[in-house]
Amino acid sequence: MQIGMVGLGRMGGNMAERLRRGGHEVVGYDRDPAISDVESLKELVERLRAPRAVWVMVPAGEPTRATVEALAGLLAPGDIVIDGGNSHYVDDRRHGDELATKGIGFVDVGVSGGVWGLDNGYALMTGGDEAHIRALSPVFDTLKPAEGGFVHAGKIGAGHFAKMVHNGIEYGMMQAFAEGWELLEAADVVDDVEGTFRSWRQGTVIRSWLLDLMVRALDEDPDLSELRGYAQDSGEGRWTVQAAVEHAVPLPVITAALYARFRSRQSDSPAMKVIAALRSQFGGHAVSS
Amino acid sequence: MQIGMVGLGRMGGNMAERLRRGGHEVVGYDRDPAISDVESLKELVERLRAPRAVWVMVPAGEPTRATVEALAGLLAPGDIVIDGGNSHYVDDRRHGDELATKGIGFVDVGVSGGVWGLDNGYALMTGGDEAHIRALSPVFDTLKPAEGGFVHAGKIGAGHFAKMVHNGIEYGMMQAFAEGWELLEAADVVDDVEGTFRSWRQGTVIRSWLLDLMVRALDEDPDLSELRGYAQDSGEGRWTVQAAVEHAVPLPVITAALYARFRSRQSDSPAMKVIAALRSQFGGHAVSS
Amino acid sequence: MQIGMVGLGRMGGNMAERLRRGGHEVVGYDRDPAISDVESLKELVERLRAPRAVWVMVPAGEPTRATVEALAGLLAPGDIVIDGGNSHYVDDRRHGDELATKGIGFVDVGVSGGVWGLDNGYALMTGGDEAHIRALSPVFDTLKPAEGGFVHAGKIGAGHFAKMVHNGIEYGMMQAFAEGWELLEAADVVDDVEGTFRSWRQGTVIRSWLLDLMVRALDEDPDLSELRGYAQDSGEGRWTVQAAVEHAVPLPVITAALYARFRSRQSDSPAMKVIAALRSQFGGHAVSS
Amino acid sequence: MQIGMVGLGRMGGNMAERLRRGGHEVVGYDRDPAISDVESLKELVERLRAPRAVWVMVPAGEPTRATVEALAGLLAPGDIVIDGGNSHYVDDRRHGDELATKGIGFVDVGVSGGVWGLDNGYALMTGGDEAHIRALSPVFDTLKPAEGGFVHAGKIGAGHFAKMVHNGIEYGMMQAFAEGWELLEAADVVDDVEGTFRSWRQGTVIRSWLLDLMVRALDEDPDLSELRGYAQDSGEGRWTVQAAVEHAVPLPVITAALYARFRSRQSDSPAMKVIAALRSQFGGHAVSS
Repeated sequence: MQIGMVGLGRMGGNMAERLRRGGHEVVGYDRDPAISDVESLKELVERLRAPRAVWVMVPAGEPTRATVEALAGLLAPGDIVIDGGNSHYVDDRRHGDELATKGIGFVDVGVSGGVWGLDNGYALMTGGDEAHIRALSPVFDTLKPAEGGFVHAGKIGAGHFAKMVHNGIEYGMMQAFAEGWELLEAADVVDDVEGTFRSWRQGTVIRSWLLDLMVRALDEDPDLSELRGYAQDSGEGRWTVQAAVEHAVPLPVITAALYARFRSRQSDSPAMKVIAALRSQFGGHAVSS
Repeated sequence: MQIGMVGLGRMGGNMAERLRRGGHEVVGYDRDPAISDVESLKELVERLRAPRAVWVMVPAGEPTRATVEALAGLLAPGDIVIDGGNSHYVDDRRHGDELATKGIGFVDVGVSGGVWGLDNGYALMTGGDEAHIRALSPVFDTLKPAEGGFVHAGKIGAGHFAKMVHNGIEYGMMQAFAEGWELLEAADVVDDVEGTFRSWRQGTVIRSWLLDLMVRALDEDPDLSELRGYAQDSGEGRWTVQAAVEHAVPLPVITAALYARFRSRQSDSPAMKVIAALRSQFGGHAVSS
Repeated sequence: MQIGMVGLGRMGGNMAERLRRGGHEVVGYDRDPAISDVESLKELVERLRAPRAVWVMVPAGEPTRATVEALAGLLAPGDIVIDGGNSHYVDDRRHGDELATKGIGFVDVGVSGGVWGLDNGYALMTGGDEAHIRALSPVFDTLKPAEGGFVHAGKIGAGHFAKMVHNGIEYGMMQAFAEGWELLEAADVVDDVEGTFRSWRQGTVIRSWLLDLMVRALDEDPDLSELRGYAQDSGEGRWTVQAAVEHAVPLPVITAALYARFRSRQSDSPAMKVIAALRSQFGGHAVSS
Repeated sequence: MQIGMVGLGRMGGNMAERLRRGGHEVVGYDRDPAISDVESLKELVERLRAPRAVWVMVPAGEPTRATVEALAGLLAPGDIVIDGGNSHYVDDRRHGDELATKGIGFVDVGVSGGVWGLDNGYALMTGGDEAHIRALSPVFDTLKPAEGGFVHAGKIGAGHFAKMVHNGIEYGMMQAFAEGWELLEAADVVDDVEGTFRSWRQGTVIRSWLLDLMVRALDEDPDLSELRGYAQDSGEGRWTVQAAVEHAVPLPVITAALYARFRSRQSDSPAMKVIAALRSQFGGHAVSS
């Protein structure tokens, strides 16, 4: 089918490519004229036949909000906007309501796949009306992996909510591997840490794609000496914790993983200055200044 | 090759079976005469040709200690004892030292595989002298999965230490999935939670054997209504945390996963009684009694 | 000075009483006519001389919002509204802006003191313009303890923010005592747990009002057998964690304390059902159903 | 009464001084001849009248073990050894058993007080036989604060166990204050953070000696800019967590506080290198190297 793609960066560009390989006609728009098929959102909309489908693949927050608003002014009843970015599910509801007042459909899609998606397919978690999901099924079928990798999770927002929780789980799993590696390195009982990780890829309970990636990373840099222990966090980890707090759900592992990332970005810990100060006050403990 | 197997329970019995299918001659001993090939450890040793290899597959702690001690009295220099149970790596060192005084070799093997190992192979993490590992390689090759699944991790104790850390990682990963499921169920945004987990099996960052098992579990009982949220912990999770504390390695995720299990076994939380008491004292907050 | 008090419940009623004891003229309004001095907010405003000060002491969220809105319609430029409830600091900003458009001042006050405040004074953390704080100083001086217990923390919202963090700290401290008690009871090394807590009240690093309250609680019920380990959480704990996540500040202790409360209210843990399910799948571990 | 004091460092020296001020006769021994009253442990024992009491105040672990062993060879039946250091309660049992075979009594005492103890008194948590405790009561009465600050917690080991848990609680409380301070500084809502802490000293739920010390520290260095966020941990925090793991008691807050200290001593986090490596592998995320 024909589809518009707004945002042709690493994710959007690769997804457009996978769609074209799958026989779809993709009209792409990007702020960067060098990679854009059209000069403006307006031209993009004009180039598409009604009922149109426009897939938005721009950064979450203000860029997505502005794009949806602009599309609301350009599209016609019966068209569908798809937000495949990393939007907060609360934003989806606002976008869906806004577009609905003009008769325009809205579908949110949580997309997983990273740099591997172009060849292996993208896992898609979708939210929205059944009819809209059905209308877009040719596109979803091409984007997703050959087997599985697709769910219509629920109403508007459910796709991004599912992706958000997916990322929360990912935080916890990554941190579990990270802690295991640190302990193996610190304890100095196991001599062949890299070989141990490699061996875990078959026959163990923890075999997983993350473990495969871990082995790839150790292949390239066996003691990770070329990396700093510094990790950004995307919005999803924070939103997962905030949703949990809102719903009174305890998430000790996912939260600990998020906090470890926060901590990794501090060159010195303010909290631990307090500990040092208190120890100095009550015990005359030597402090490191 | 020929090997003795002490302990023919679920794990030992299946491993003996896999070895036999692989063409090895296994002489098995078990306390239960109905499944034992011989009447005593002594007879087991007599039935084996020197240099002997005896694989111990009995519960960690006292049963393993007693078996190793008995074997120390029965075996001859050049023989090898293999501890494939879930022993603490500190015990391995004692067992290794004890056997070494008699010229008997010792190899510790952390074994992963559960009920799936018979058909798929067992992941093996081994510790001990290179010569002993080499001597046992026919057995290891049969027990392990077709590809990979084997590491000579280091000296005596390294096999069980690697397995211990493996289990610690497993605790963290399982808890990450568990928290994600709880949040999805609680937030009531995603309608098809089971389908969401199923979709994650392809194309996502969190695809893993544990996720496959999770989907199997949800197939059988979609809302897990037939289970209680009650989980035992094996020694490995505790030892992982204790080793981390000893080495000053922070393990927030693995520890949180262990504590969640501890908490799951309390019908009421003593700590939270204190919270209720304090709230009542300072605020006149209503308490639930 | 003269002041209006809206909300004469446990907190508001006691504060009105303390103000009267201190020589202030308090006109109180409550939805319950039996304890209200006036029949309506309107009458309350009419009874006060300009420039008026009206202290709002009603539940946070909608009740406070509605009261502030009503007062915005009744008061005159130069009057001041004080929100002494447990409002979220984000609400303060909205309330302040709304009132400012009418020339009405706004001050937010985080109040600590519980049932002890009437006699001992209330700790006050205030936010707002210097001029408004100064105008209200006679009231603050009466409400607060004889020494200290007062801070002008910053602009509008700073009072409730400070109180929010205070409560977050309180969560962590309470949980620390709770965990210590649980360990003492479980380990069965210390015979006189109650006496141990009592002894800590002098000479130790952990002496504190919370410890005093703990001893009071143990006096009344030495093994806390009459309580259930069930604890509500007020909004402040959640807001503290959400503010931390927003600012990328790791709060492992405060968050763990909040999660322990969440967990205390679950009769069964959904997350731990997943653990039980996974253990059953991979290990054939007996599960408790 | 007459008492021998072994170890005249910061703690032992001050305790000897407080005992002397209280009218006791203290014979002190230290490895440093400049501050020792006698030349050897042997001379110390000879200078004391039977039944002797010797208070050991040396570092936990090997130094304490060696001292107790030496005293076992020098003392006579009816004498009492007191271990007032920071020994692990498991060591107490061994020491008690060893001395008991010679008819020598043993009492373990957890001592809190730091540099403040000389003037304010030391909180004492004791373990041992009732008769031994009673015999030493003149000494305990002088060392402890005027009111309270003393408990006979249970049998041998109970004193150090109580002190260990005290320190665990202290870790949690300190971390709670530390996290609150970090959030206040990071969020930039409260302008007067120092004043806010100061105000909390009266009328709040969190008033405590640690808060007093916090205010003292902020008096000296309002933004703690002269300190590094680096904190040692003594054995007690680790032992608390290990005892909890042994008894299956979840200690999320105390453990998080301990881990924060471990983390504070890492210039780079090995675990977070793994996170950075994995993010780089699956997402092409920029890493900081």
